[in-house]
Amino acid sequence: MAIKAVVFDAYGTLYDVESVSTVADQVFPGYGAVIAGVWRQKQLEYTWLRTLMGRYEDLSIITRESLAFTLRCLGLKYDPANFQRIIDKYLRLELYADAKDTLAALKDRTLAILTNGSVEMINALVRNTGLDGMLNAVISIASTKTFKPGRAAYEPIEATLGIPREDVLFVSSNPFDACGAKSFGFRVAWIEHVTPAALAHELSDRRHIAASTVIRMLRTQMEELGLAPDYRVGALAELPNIVAHADP
Amino acid sequence: MAIKAVVFDAYGTLYDVESVSTVADQVFPGYGAVIAGVWRQKQLEYTWLRTLMGRYEDLSIITRESLAFTLRCLGLKYDPANFQRIIDKYLRLELYADAKDTLAALKDRTLAILTNGSVEMINALVRNTGLDGMLNAVISIASTKTFKPGRAAYEPIEATLGIPREDVLFVSSNPFDACGAKSFGFRVAWIEHVTPAALAHELSDRRHIAASTVIRMLRTQMEELGLAPDYRVGALAELPNIVAHADP
Repeated sequence: MAIKAVVFDAYGTLYDVESVSTVADQVFPGYGAVIAGVWRQKQLEYTWLRTLMGRYEDLSIITRESLAFTLRCLGLKYDPANFQRIIDKYLRLELYADAKDTLAALKDRTLAILTNGSVEMINALVRNTGLDGMLNAVISIASTKTFKPGRAAYEPIEATLGIPREDVLFVSSNPFDACGAKSFGFRVAWIEHVTPAALAHELSDRRHIAASTVIRMLRTQMEELGLAPDYRVGALAELPNIVAHADP
Repeated sequence: MAIKAVVFDAYGTLYDVESVSTVADQVFPGYGAVIAGVWRQKQLEYTWLRTLMGRYEDLSIITRESLAFTLRCLGLKYDPANFQRIIDKYLRLELYADAKDTLAALKDRTLAILTNGSVEMINALVRNTGLDGMLNAVISIASTKTFKPGRAAYEPIEATLGIPREDVLFVSSNPFDACGAKSFGFRVAWIEHVTPAALAHELSDRRHIAASTVIRMLRTQMEELGLAPDYRVGALAELPNIVAHADP
């Protein structure tokens, strides 16, 4: 079976969510990495908890609430301008270096994003980073009021693209999302940004495991959920070759 | 309105989940605290992710899978006997020091546990720690195949006890659980095991935030979910006074 569409997760997959740490460090010197890590972790937790409780809110609200949690717990005082300066980075996250070349190399397939982000957030981010001409569709889970990996979150892909799930390659660096997409029935490529060897290197001194390392452990290593991606790659740049060879 | 029933969360509320760190440290010297923290964090993530994906499994399986994730990511080699030695602690967790006295002082109310634990796990734990004569009911979410804070997880309380939600005080130290119970409609007491001041003390050196401190931040501080508990207490021992004064 040929892969007719390649659908990318946005936050963490095309866009480096750790890139918020630079502005966070400018506002709160010394805290950039821990802010970026805790903020991302809590943002995801709130997507899961709100979906479970039946209390959906837009990701833009969750992103604000999770940053507020992070700064409060770290005991960091802020004013609205400082807070907004950090939040604004979410509309201008950095693309991974190989993102544009990968999309260009795949342009003979249908290309899309499926994201937890609200329509407004993701459209601004795509426009600000120059991806708007490179994608056939930018799809938000917002219409389902279900964040990933809830099954309903993946449903708009087939409806929007008109392509059945078995002909879609779903690409995510987020292990929970790769598992959710696999569970739903897509073919899945997982981007392994941090190899076990790289993580082991960070952990070489067991008495001083950095805060950011713990978050990286929680967020970058494949889950033990009884689900495995079809492809495990080190970077987006490997995808064109995989797609070509998946053809019959 | 009088409080007719007091329903306790088990893991983290009556029982100290950090008490697994001692045996983990015996098996893997120097790693006890980080194992306990990451294990607990991943165990909770898997309850949320499996519920969202519609792939419920018993908490005993999730507890094994999350420990396997933790040891793998930390690069710790183990044999089945070492693994089992750590897992077995989950059936013999330590009660908080004031748990039994609190239950004894509340014995004129209906007392119960509502837990994510499977029937087998929680019954073994309750028996091993001598709580079996002190509770009117031990309720597992297992019949609902929905982990907390999913709304369905809280439903068995009214059905089992025959007491409407507005007459139930739900007690949890887990902020997500306190929010879930509040969202469902119980009166809620949140046990604040780690005050902001205590956390700030641990964070006094921003360049060396310990791994266990990050997990404590994620798991002990009230969430930013737009929900607030009715009572915020420092320990179980404060509950009898609260229950008495909630009477009309």
